[in-house]
Amino acid sequence: MELKRVSRETRYRGKIIDLLVDQVEYPSGNRTVREVAHHPGGAVVVPILDDGRVVLVYQLRYPLERHILELPAGKLFPGEDPALCAGRELEEETGWIADSLEKLCSFYTSPGFCDEELHIYLGRGLRLSPEGHKREEGEFTMTVRLLPVAEALEMVNQGLIKDGKTIIGLLLARDRIR
Amino acid sequence: MELKRVSRETRYRGKIIDLLVDQVEYPSGNRTVREVAHHPGGAVVVPILDDGRVVLVYQLRYPLERHILELPAGKLFPGEDPALCAGRELEEETGWIADSLEKLCSFYTSPGFCDEELHIYLGRGLRLSPEGHKREEGEFTMTVRLLPVAEALEMVNQGLIKDGKTIIGLLLARDRIR
Repeated sequence: MELKRVSRETRYRGKIIDLLVDQVEYPSGNRTVREVAHHPGGAVVVPILDDGRVVLVYQLRYPLERHILELPAGKLFPGEDPALCAGRELEEETGWIADSLEKLCSFYTSPGFCDEELHIYLGRGLRLSPEGHKREEGEFTMTVRLLPVAEALEMVNQGLIKDGKTIIGLLLARDRIR
Repeated sequence: MELKRVSRETRYRGKIIDLLVDQVEYPSGNRTVREVAHHPGGAVVVPILDDGRVVLVYQLRYPLERHILELPAGKLFPGEDPALCAGRELEEETGWIADSLEKLCSFYTSPGFCDEELHIYLGRGLRLSPEGHKREEGEFTMTVRLLPVAEALEMVNQGLIKDGKTIIGLLLARDRIR
């Protein structure tokens, strides 16, 4: 890197992120601070039922103080294969199991301060687990919504779906399934 | 909210984010911790030249320890109109000025831990500022890249453009300009 790290301090170790604060030096010799929210990364599924509906979850997002509509998703365990994570989170959050998971893309959510990378999969061949969902207490506000893909895409265009990974997943799935 | 905030502690005040750590209580009475990275939000431009090329920037993203290709973008000043921010950042980062900025969407980058909201605009009627760009020292690695929109979209499909806001902006612009 053209930016030299002079020091690194871990200011917080959390459930979702760790916060690292670095002193860095420009080529000029000037110094400044860079904040890095270290995130384990995650996986996302665009689960498309045989009838063409997409499986979404509606849940409280605490930082926003509101409920939003999103694709099923969750954080990677250390070293976890993102495709396994995608299938696991889909089943845990919605009770649906995907026979096939096809990679759509990987992307960075907010690279100015955070290293989070998300991996999005198209999930098809869906069947309901006999055991149902396995939500944690932290997901107690979550409910499942089944919407025709065209309707979900219309909600993107109308600004009613506002989650980044969900917008990317739906737009890329549209190109793949039509 | 169904989740009751018991306490809030500001653990860090930074250049890009502040980190708030809350104690919260579920309806069951169980308590847990929620991390909130408070971000001022930002604005993004999809700048389309009259010849059909899009203006991108290539820059070091310190948290990723790599350079990536992105749409011009930047943080909102407190109370700033996102459209003004979009035009300001476009000119500062690239030296291009847009005669028209048309809203494409607003979205949340990572709502599980962060309240960052980005506002994306389609920029057209572009002309070069006689003064050129006005990059800050923190942007010293930034260079401008002009690419046909179709080529940028192909880079999204090939996984060569990996920035979330850039993927969303290019996919939504494609629908608007064709």
